[in-house]
Amino acid sequence: MLRSWNDGAALAAIRDFVARVTAEGSPEFLPVAERVAVFDNDGTLWCEKPMPIELGFILQRLAAMAEQDPALRERQPWKAAYDRDYAWLGEVLTKHYAGDDSELKVVLGGVLQAFAGMDVEAYQVAAHGFLHQGRHPTLDRHFFRCGYKPMVELLEYLTANGFSCYIASGGDRDFMRPVTERIYGIPAERVIGTSNALRYEPDEHGGTIVYLAEPDYFNDGPTKPLRIWSRIGRRPVLAAGNSNGDIEMLQFAGGPSRPGLSLLVLHDDPEREFDYVAGAERALAAARANGWTVVSVKRDWATVFDDATASKHEEGS
Amino acid sequence: MLRSWNDGAALAAIRDFVARVTAEGSPEFLPVAERVAVFDNDGTLWCEKPMPIELGFILQRLAAMAEQDPALRERQPWKAAYDRDYAWLGEVLTKHYAGDDSELKVVLGGVLQAFAGMDVEAYQVAAHGFLHQGRHPTLDRHFFRCGYKPMVELLEYLTANGFSCYIASGGDRDFMRPVTERIYGIPAERVIGTSNALRYEPDEHGGTIVYLAEPDYFNDGPTKPLRIWSRIGRRPVLAAGNSNGDIEMLQFAGGPSRPGLSLLVLHDDPEREFDYVAGAERALAAARANGWTVVSVKRDWATVFDDATASKHEEGS
Repeated sequence: MLRSWNDGAALAAIRDFVARVTAEGSPEFLPVAERVAVFDNDGTLWCEKPMPIELGFILQRLAAMAEQDPALRERQPWKAAYDRDYAWLGEVLTKHYAGDDSELKVVLGGVLQAFAGMDVEAYQVAAHGFLHQGRHPTLDRHFFRCGYKPMVELLEYLTANGFSCYIASGGDRDFMRPVTERIYGIPAERVIGTSNALRYEPDEHGGTIVYLAEPDYFNDGPTKPLRIWSRIGRRPVLAAGNSNGDIEMLQFAGGPSRPGLSLLVLHDDPEREFDYVAGAERALAAARANGWTVVSVKRDWATVFDDATASKHEEGS
Repeated sequence: MLRSWNDGAALAAIRDFVARVTAEGSPEFLPVAERVAVFDNDGTLWCEKPMPIELGFILQRLAAMAEQDPALRERQPWKAAYDRDYAWLGEVLTKHYAGDDSELKVVLGGVLQAFAGMDVEAYQVAAHGFLHQGRHPTLDRHFFRCGYKPMVELLEYLTANGFSCYIASGGDRDFMRPVTERIYGIPAERVIGTSNALRYEPDEHGGTIVYLAEPDYFNDGPTKPLRIWSRIGRRPVLAAGNSNGDIEMLQFAGGPSRPGLSLLVLHDDPEREFDYVAGAERALAAARANGWTVVSVKRDWATVFDDATASKHEEGS
């Protein structure tokens, strides 16, 4: 276990924390029920560059809508989707992480329209297909092979030590669910994320649930601890993230009376993955101020992606 | 298992359904991951008369507020709480189940005020104390002994057959959580219920989450399937309820392509429990129309409450 990690401060911090909370008689021992760990997804468990994987799914849908309706080709975000203007979208996200959400609102407005009226089970089928058939634009691999091997090993290591691991992502909850079990071993009921509001439509065959063109909540920043509490009913003791949107979740781990470990993934490896701090500036400052453990992709990870088991997975796709 | 059930149509329907979905080679076989069951709580898993257990907790809090502030003694629902006018409150709930929510809004307004500003961990401690120390007003037992023995056995039977059981209640999620593991073996993360909105308040010690004086959602009626989907990401195949607020959840179980079992508990036993259909009239009609299985407390349950293990539980309180 943890074989894809290099020896170093990050690996030592993880091993030390798990030893302290699992050793019988340790002053920081935690019963199994209290060993709850939460992980951001984009940029923490799988790669998010050149753009978040979910955005590709949304753009595909928006482009298809613009294909049908020429008037949409003049409106953002349909225009960017139809013109494949991914640079515009990347800027929107960078601005968001810097605190400017003006254009993000335009994108989110389009996203809400994109799936309005679709029923949740049809969406699940569409997301499953995209994630299992689609390929990353630059990394030469399927999307379901874009998970970071050291983080998958960390999930396995924690699970073997009695932890329950949850995803708490700013990404869409129902988009991730069809693939989290396969990539991470995390079942649908342990996926916390952003969601549109829903409506139940009764019929003679058990009814359906459809997405509305309005948000339920955007699971980012201070909303993350709230949704984690709502779903789990406990304060986690371990949290891992990589951006400014994870600060409150990283703060929340452990709390006043229990041990906590907060991990911040730093993307500093242009050779094997990507090199960026945009959107993580405040999180890195908070890590220094609070003594959180920074995980350097370049220094701490011996392997980034799992190519050995990837082919095994692909056979099953 | 299921020893507290009498032989009859309800027991046969439960055994038949579980056999059909768990037998390898059965045309209706379901993999373990798809064996999801959802249960209403008040009136389905534990008794809700003469008033819901949670209401006692809220009234205690409202009465304490009126004790501090005489002006509140002239305002509902503080007036009823302070005067111990439980009949007024019972009528409010009966009206709600009949479709008239005018006075329920007055009560809910008071409920929202009752816990506004309290942090979730302090609330958890208070609810734990109430549920473990408080006693039912007429049944001569602690609240944590008010679970129906046949339903606890049903949860155990389903769990032994690979099901994951969730509570999906109109009651407050965080009120139930401190006691669901003890009574039902259902952990906090499998409790779906009503909730106030929350706010994260950062501090130097991991921050706190506090309740706001506004609802997040009221988990009743058509909201139940939505919250079930949001939390689990699957359509359940078994649902159990007892009131009009459970109709949509009972409809939703199974769905167009999978087997489903919907159970409706009928309270018809004034000797051992209570006898009432107020608030369940439409649900009973829907059960007849849809072929749902009605569970009669009087006919189908050999034992209602578990007195043998109750004393064992009480030793641990």
